[in-house]
Amino acid sequence: MLEISSVSNELIKKFISLKNKKYRDEYGLFLLDDIDLIKEAYDLGLLEYYLYANKPYTDFNCENIKTNTNVLSKLSSLENIPNGIGVAKIVQNSKEYSDKIIALDDVQDPGNGGTILRSALAFNFKTMLLSSSCFDTYNEKFIRSTKGAFFNCNIIRDNLVNQLLKLKGKGYEIVIADLNKNAINVNDYKMPEKMVLVVGNEGNGISKEIENIADKTIYIPINSKIESLNVGVAASIIMSKNNL
Amino acid sequence: MLEISSVSNELIKKFISLKNKKYRDEYGLFLLDDIDLIKEAYDLGLLEYYLYANKPYTDFNCENIKTNTNVLSKLSSLENIPNGIGVAKIVQNSKEYSDKIIALDDVQDPGNGGTILRSALAFNFKTMLLSSSCFDTYNEKFIRSTKGAFFNCNIIRDNLVNQLLKLKGKGYEIVIADLNKNAINVNDYKMPEKMVLVVGNEGNGISKEIENIADKTIYIPINSKIESLNVGVAASIIMSKNNL
Repeated sequence: MLEISSVSNELIKKFISLKNKKYRDEYGLFLLDDIDLIKEAYDLGLLEYYLYANKPYTDFNCENIKTNTNVLSKLSSLENIPNGIGVAKIVQNSKEYSDKIIALDDVQDPGNGGTILRSALAFNFKTMLLSSSCFDTYNEKFIRSTKGAFFNCNIIRDNLVNQLLKLKGKGYEIVIADLNKNAINVNDYKMPEKMVLVVGNEGNGISKEIENIADKTIYIPINSKIESLNVGVAASIIMSKNNL
Repeated sequence: MLEISSVSNELIKKFISLKNKKYRDEYGLFLLDDIDLIKEAYDLGLLEYYLYANKPYTDFNCENIKTNTNVLSKLSSLENIPNGIGVAKIVQNSKEYSDKIIALDDVQDPGNGGTILRSALAFNFKTMLLSSSCFDTYNEKFIRSTKGAFFNCNIIRDNLVNQLLKLKGKGYEIVIADLNKNAINVNDYKMPEKMVLVVGNEGNGISKEIENIADKTIYIPINSKIESLNVGVAASIIMSKNNL
């Protein structure tokens, strides 16, 4: 067990730098500030360091570091300082695709993304594709709002157009959610065995390039007094039509 | 037109205090940092002050105050300083109930609340009841995430048990959303003409007291690998079953 009390310690400085995507990529590590997620990372053999202030949650078989609440507050993005922080390995994705896939085209808010992944696991869309322009998937707000779906889904951040074309070639139906009233009402849409549901940017919706790849467009009928639904809600309503 | 450049000006200090529920209640005023919402407040005769830094959006027929970005940044809760801030009147609610009502029992996150109100208007649940323990409905995050539904719905924050009992007496079916698998599958539930859908606290769900009032309990079938859906998503999926 190490004991470190200073935020200017080199190892702590390295951990603090992990709040920044650049350093997450450089070190191949990311931060976890929720004990359930730390446990999941540990069970998957991904936990490298566990930092705690007073009493450790348990004796994780990794580098345990006794520190103080000041250090933890610098590492956490939460308002309330957590009891412990985990530092886990970023691993290369297995690249196995589920039959039902959710894809995000330029979604910006990690909280929306986390809500979508949580719903995706709930409705058996166990693969999430993200365009390179989306939020970073090792962002703490994203990880936290997935409520554990993070470690149970296949998350692939890459060129979305290329990915969709490849999946189309493998027999996946590419379906976009849009406000276009000439589209198919979601209540009349029958899900095929293999499909990718694509939802778009919070303000601008689906990009033209991806519209051109889509096999079908579906919409959710809503009151004309409101312009659109929250992207997480729209994605979840459509995915909920998947018979479990 | 007034010109105020100092954050220590008494009027500006009063406006800054409106970030706090206590002073919103005391002065009967609240802040708006989105131009669409400012316009809606103006159209409804609720806009009292309009503050801008460079060019006003338009010449609102209310007290216009030319100020600077420093003052606006103190008034806004946004990361990017908005071009203008509105100060609007809090009005007593009309207390007319729609046939479909959404009720929040101890929901804490104003963002979740805003998403629910946005979906509520989309699916014609035009009245929102909130228990007194919920977030404050003049919180800026709530107002912003309603995306305009704020001014088009009937929002009533009061003792929820009393409200539900009254509505039950008027023929409303009280329905709670719960994880209980012995409940009615949402896909088998037929909405009556008049109903109140109650969703609960993010961590603890529906309180016992309200469980006892409920006529029916419904659940959304989900993969057992995930504990629950986001409360905004769950409410939206159920409300989306309302035929428009």
